[in-house]
Amino acid sequence: MSDKLNETERAEALATLKETGWEEVEGRDAIARTFEFANFVEAFGWMARVAIWAEKMNHHPEWENVYKTVKVVLTSHDIGGLSERDVKLALKMEKLAL
Amino acid sequence: MSDKLNETERAEALATLKETGWEEVEGRDAIARTFEFANFVEAFGWMARVAIWAEKMNHHPEWENVYKTVKVVLTSHDIGGLSERDVKLALKMEKLAL
Repeated sequence: MSDKLNETERAEALATLKETGWEEVEGRDAIARTFEFANFVEAFGWMARVAIWAEKMNHHPEWENVYKTVKVVLTSHDIGGLSERDVKLALKMEKLAL
Repeated sequence: MSDKLNETERAEALATLKETGWEEVEGRDAIARTFEFANFVEAFGWMARVAIWAEKMNHHPEWENVYKTVKVVLTSHDIGGLSERDVKLALKMEKLAL
């Protein structure tokens, strides 16, 4: 895959994503966000919907769930950094969390 | 809840769980295990089955998923340590992973 973001694309994508709570991860070329839901059913229900999309997009998150909280890290392991796929998956996660 | 394990119960439960790969967590009264599956669909499919049981048991794991790997930590936050509920959930996870 050669979809690594160039500097301009990266700056644009991060500007958009930061508005919804995404942050760059220190020490890694990755982005992270913590999602909070009303309870476990809502949190895991969202994860299940994301999981199906992630599999369909063939791009999977690193994520951690504790009750109603889900911490997500996105990066593209195959290119060792952020790609267009991370941006797409982040935006899909936002949409599914509305 | 007053289902905190006493020393004997704890030793017995840990002996059983350690046989299947569970370990005590350093610095916390908790147990942990890493489950490996064939791929993301298998990993998340297992998580979905565990999630429904966890909600039914009203006892939820701390867990982290990266592609085909799921790292689980179990403890009972309300009593600040291991309870019978952790043992039950750990055994249910084992059964669902077979």
